[in-house]
Amino acid sequence: MNHPLSRLAIHTMTNKPWSLRECCDAYAKAGVGGVSVWRNVIEPIGIEEASRIVGDSGLKVPALVRGGFFVSRDEAKRNASIGENKKCIDEAAALDAEMVVLVVGAEVGVPLHEARKQVADGIAKCLDHAASNHVKLAIEPLHPMYAADRSCINRMADARYICEQLKSPWIGIAADVFHVWWDPDLASEIARAGRHGTLFGFHVCDWKPVMSDMLNDRGLMGEGAIDIASIRADVERAGFEGMIEVEVFSSHHWSRNQHEFLADILRAYQNHC
Amino acid sequence: MNHPLSRLAIHTMTNKPWSLRECCDAYAKAGVGGVSVWRNVIEPIGIEEASRIVGDSGLKVPALVRGGFFVSRDEAKRNASIGENKKCIDEAAALDAEMVVLVVGAEVGVPLHEARKQVADGIAKCLDHAASNHVKLAIEPLHPMYAADRSCINRMADARYICEQLKSPWIGIAADVFHVWWDPDLASEIARAGRHGTLFGFHVCDWKPVMSDMLNDRGLMGEGAIDIASIRADVERAGFEGMIEVEVFSSHHWSRNQHEFLADILRAYQNHC
Repeated sequence: MNHPLSRLAIHTMTNKPWSLRECCDAYAKAGVGGVSVWRNVIEPIGIEEASRIVGDSGLKVPALVRGGFFVSRDEAKRNASIGENKKCIDEAAALDAEMVVLVVGAEVGVPLHEARKQVADGIAKCLDHAASNHVKLAIEPLHPMYAADRSCINRMADARYICEQLKSPWIGIAADVFHVWWDPDLASEIARAGRHGTLFGFHVCDWKPVMSDMLNDRGLMGEGAIDIASIRADVERAGFEGMIEVEVFSSHHWSRNQHEFLADILRAYQNHC
Repeated sequence: MNHPLSRLAIHTMTNKPWSLRECCDAYAKAGVGGVSVWRNVIEPIGIEEASRIVGDSGLKVPALVRGGFFVSRDEAKRNASIGENKKCIDEAAALDAEMVVLVVGAEVGVPLHEARKQVADGIAKCLDHAASNHVKLAIEPLHPMYAADRSCINRMADARYICEQLKSPWIGIAADVFHVWWDPDLASEIARAGRHGTLFGFHVCDWKPVMSDMLNDRGLMGEGAIDIASIRADVERAGFEGMIEVEVFSSHHWSRNQHEFLADILRAYQNHC
């Protein structure tokens, strides 16, 4: 299909063995258009140095990853999460990132309906800070297999309910094919998010039917069951003009030579997205 | 809560190391009311012997497990699945089982919307045989993590769409908490299934947030994140009067002394359902 690489962004976590500088150097040299920055690569160098590296690379930054984790039985922890999310927003502003991706949280013992309320409350408390920093907040619905401990928001529709409650141009959705591909309502929810102006992000990787591990055995595009091109077509029809972000967690691919893996990512992007 | 054990049924697969006779002997002796029979325990002894064992035990048989697997790119395989499902229905009739549980199937390369059509078509071809044998067919929605290779029906709502298409008193739904607990529409769909007369089965086990394996690391009730008692209350409010079926796939529990495990099952049923 030969999509231009200028539309492609890669999450630093995809090349986990690399530092932020190694990621930015390699992506820029390959002609990739953007980098989504995970906080673990900022932590060892600080936000000023991170901002300089990203700025010098010329790469766009669709997303800082990740904020969220609003859910807890413990009110002090819920309050602490607000401060942490504001810090995330500050870092995103420093990187000139378009959005902070929110993994909203879940906790065994907090009923899902209660957890979803905590998420809406938590995001509401961050919205002014997001607006004044011109940083969008993107709820990433996670696959239902993470509903117990990572995210009580598991479908596009559930992210939409939160957006509808909060009514702010700064809250929207990051749709990751790994999490949402199975949803019978996916196409209609993508179209709806397009109409509402809430389709902030689009992440790609693939779903391997047999995974050795529920977290770190994602497939590169083309290695699994997802018809990514068809979902991308829905996303484009919905008016999405953002970057296509590759986010692959894979112990297998992390153990490889990362330059060879990057070459595979570029090929997979051009052939399967 | 001290639910009477007469309402409890156990799936033979829960005590996988046991033969059908060992299961029936132990369950009857413990005062358990029913057994759901998996085909792998019939296979070595034949359906006549199986039927005799179950009949002699005095146990009720909510379900024969499992039929389905209607999805394939290959038309010959799809046709073969109809014959196999009719054989399942015959076996269920021989065991005086109330229903056949359907794991409907999925296949990498068959788009989900096409797979769902194949499922409706496949079930439609089995309904007359089910009716004439007085055996219900229960679609079991499987967790979305099995959407690529086991079941293209992943929510109560999606099972309902099939029931609505087929309009037969012989097609309904088996709700397994492991698969559906995360669904924000669960309570409303259970109520709806109750009103429509399609709530045929109710299976319990638990969801461990960290699983060593996506298939065979289910928790016993109380070992995980699911508020089973709350879902059971929804099911009872919906008018369900069937048995509560314990279905646990667990390499860990299979490696234990099965009499000790059975004692744990009874306790877990009484404390967490």
